[in-house]
Amino acid sequence: MANTAGQIIRCRAAVAWEAGKPLVIEEVEVAPPQKMEVRVKILFTSLCHTDVYFWEAKGQTPVFPRIFGHEAGGIVESVGEGVTELAPGDHVLPLFTGECKECVHCKSEESNLCESLRINTDRGVMLNDGKTRFSINGKPIFHFVGTSTFSEYTVIHVGCLAKINPLAPLDKVCVVSCGISTGLGSTLNVAKPTKGSSVAIFGLGAVGLAAAEGARIAGASRIIGIDLNSKRFEEAKKFGITEFVNPKDHKKPIQEVIVELTGGGVDRSVECTGNVDAMISAFECVHDGWGVAVIVGIPHKEAVFKTHPMNFLHERTLKGAFFGNYKPRTGIPSVVEMYMNKELGLDKFITHQVPFSEINKAFDYMLKGEGLRCLIRMDE
Amino acid sequence: MANTAGQIIRCRAAVAWEAGKPLVIEEVEVAPPQKMEVRVKILFTSLCHTDVYFWEAKGQTPVFPRIFGHEAGGIVESVGEGVTELAPGDHVLPLFTGECKECVHCKSEESNLCESLRINTDRGVMLNDGKTRFSINGKPIFHFVGTSTFSEYTVIHVGCLAKINPLAPLDKVCVVSCGISTGLGSTLNVAKPTKGSSVAIFGLGAVGLAAAEGARIAGASRIIGIDLNSKRFEEAKKFGITEFVNPKDHKKPIQEVIVELTGGGVDRSVECTGNVDAMISAFECVHDGWGVAVIVGIPHKEAVFKTHPMNFLHERTLKGAFFGNYKPRTGIPSVVEMYMNKELGLDKFITHQVPFSEINKAFDYMLKGEGLRCLIRMDE
Ligand SMILES: NC(=O)c1ccc[n+]([C@@H]2O[C@H](COP(=O)([O-])OP(=O)(O)OC[C@H]3O[C@@H](n4cnc5c(N)ncnc54)[C@H](O)[C@@H]3O)[C@@H](O)[C@H]2O)c1
Ligand SMILES: NC(=O)c1ccc[n+]([C@@H]2O[C@H](COP(=O)([O-])OP(=O)(O)OC[C@H]3O[C@@H](n4cnc5c(N)ncnc54)[C@H](O)[C@@H]3O)[C@@H](O)[C@H]2O)c1
Ligand SMILES: [Zn+2]
Ligand SMILES: [Zn+2]
Ligand SMILES: [Zn+2]
Ligand SMILES: [Zn+2]
Repeated sequence: MANTAGQIIRCRAAVAWEAGKPLVIEEVEVAPPQKMEVRVKILFTSLCHTDVYFWEAKGQTPVFPRIFGHEAGGIVESVGEGVTELAPGDHVLPLFTGECKECVHCKSEESNLCESLRINTDRGVMLNDGKTRFSINGKPIFHFVGTSTFSEYTVIHVGCLAKINPLAPLDKVCVVSCGISTGLGSTLNVAKPTKGSSVAIFGLGAVGLAAAEGARIAGASRIIGIDLNSKRFEEAKKFGITEFVNPKDHKKPIQEVIVELTGGGVDRSVECTGNVDAMISAFECVHDGWGVAVIVGIPHKEAVFKTHPMNFLHERTLKGAFFGNYKPRTGIPSVVEMYMNKELGLDKFITHQVPFSEINKAFDYMLKGEGLRCLIRMDE
Repeated sequence: MANTAGQIIRCRAAVAWEAGKPLVIEEVEVAPPQKMEVRVKILFTSLCHTDVYFWEAKGQTPVFPRIFGHEAGGIVESVGEGVTELAPGDHVLPLFTGECKECVHCKSEESNLCESLRINTDRGVMLNDGKTRFSINGKPIFHFVGTSTFSEYTVIHVGCLAKINPLAPLDKVCVVSCGISTGLGSTLNVAKPTKGSSVAIFGLGAVGLAAAEGARIAGASRIIGIDLNSKRFEEAKKFGITEFVNPKDHKKPIQEVIVELTGGGVDRSVECTGNVDAMISAFECVHDGWGVAVIVGIPHKEAVFKTHPMNFLHERTLKGAFFGNYKPRTGIPSVVEMYMNKELGLDKFITHQVPFSEINKAFDYMLKGEGLRCLIRMDE
């Protein structure tokens, strides 16, 4: 790498000029990192629903022009003032939610909801000066969740970068930075199924299949996959799911079907749909006495979770999980290690690949519900 | 004790002939215990809301004539066929919910919801033959939750009796058999506050105050008591509660008041009211990232628990507790030991005393909301 530290870098970025309109590859100027910031060369990125959701901007505050992207892998190009934990050449995964290591949440053993660097989808600027590091002819281009990985170079707060094993292939482990860790951790860190137990997974997108992968790793003997879209079942067979249920094939509420199927309910359930009815079913299908249900999907703003309180009194537990309860900087590198140790499969999540110049194809695949993750190669 | 084993015993019992009508002290015949049953001489009993609730029988199936009572202490008079764990002379606490030690729940480390001996408020007969052991001139008198302790002698399934330390004073530890263990265990076994943490207790009846006692024992530094009835606050001062909040004194929803008071929410909350709005407040007032709320109160049949699912996704946990999650036979003797070791105070729960002949006074105190527990002395 040429020494570009301290200088403005001109490079290609996929800019979303307007809500719902195809991204345009532009030459952007990327300013040097400021205090506690790091400039990263992105090598691989992938597309997640959250990008599409805020790009469509139906309902949320529109922040445009903006550079999306938050699942990625890259290499540190230069660091700003005060950055001691990272140096040029380090391999990193950008994180849509950060870890300051100093607030009450970061100091708690349980929380990963950092007070200062927690995900903020409305903010399009850097924390240090409230300005953007991207511009085109002096016109600022906004950031997205502090990562904006649909650019060859991006500037990220040091608290939103996980330093990973440099031997890990970035074209695989880039998917660890959002959906996969979310699903995996929701099972391993929050639902915590025991060996030989039964687990129901609601929603078989990338997040749900990563949750299923977590159940397989934990040694669950029965992993029931539930999805309204039976097409998902073929792909899901690679993920250790032992049986499939489509609520559309049943007249009864799906929680009753699962309770019958398992003679009393599953030991654990993980909801990865974002649909509030699936959340209620996921809760009501766990066994009394010990069942634990975990909500992962992001619900609609007006959604209301409703159930009879006796369902709790029969000793059921309901929890929510955010980012699989991984502490972003200190926990995510361990997920990369799980891949390196061959405990966790990642290749099977990457069902499509496109060069950066064809990034809009990745949006098409996702909008059609085709495949799981589309890898975007920045060098092409 | 004279040897009465194998014989019918004639003794006094307080019979509820009709819903809501004063109990009548009658001479009843108590048949000998059958297979897996034990006949117990009751020395002390106390009145709990559940007795009053099923005596009023507003809404539930009325089962009359019936002998109520389930909080009590007594001594084994004789045992039926197959009973090996108890012998005449043993000190026991009757249990409204049992433990068979063989079903999937009893074998689980987490559940106390025994499949065969779980509380059943509709059944008025013994499991072995579907008949009653009480009669008056041949007319059967029904049992209540398998205990019917408002009788000098009663017959109980061996799975619904906890054998306790014979040195424990039965006039104190009798209150351990229901409400106190329910509240105490809901905090110690389910909410599990850590040392120095903050705990909100909703409802300051005997169950809530026992939950507060649990928080004090666990070393919580801030215990907030919430009740609609400010009269409860005076009594509650003996139970380690550090501050009181009456929702009626505030315009805002009480969960918001508590979140402000604690700078983000309490670490734990325990709901002991039975009111669904209090359940929702108890959940929504816990801190994001790690807060755990526990529901204990028995809700109305039509009650619906409602909340926005994002409240879960911010890493809050909601659990229900039944009987403080104590395994009835194997766990309750340890609560008696906590009293013997002076860890747990019991005397302060016993605010009234009446002789058995005046048992209806105990009902009056409860209906007026006076005091916490009224001890009924069977020998008077
Ligand atoms: N909590 C977090 O930290 C976090 C992080 C990332 C993503 N998410 C959320 O996780 C969820 C899943 O993400 P994804 O990328 O796998 O999405 P996806 O759209 O690829 O998969 C969702 C699946 O759920 C199925 N589904 C929808 N409604 C259903 C219902 N009622 N019953 C059964 N199946 C149903 C769909 O058919 C689809 O296959 C989304 O809501 C996303 O916003 C949460
Ligand atoms: N889960 C179990 O195993 C179990 C066992 C025994 C009792 N219980 C239940 O526990 C609950 C408490 O029992 P108790 O004997 O202490 O009852 P109690 O009636 O003596 O006390 C309840 C208190 O809650 C207060 N209250 C009612 N609504 C309120 C609200 N919205 N906000 C704040 N305070 C409110 C009342 O003023 C009262 O002081 C009951 O619902 C009972 O059925 C549960
Ligand atoms: Zn922090
Ligand atoms: Zn994502
Ligand atoms: Zn059992
Ligand atoms: Zn009771």
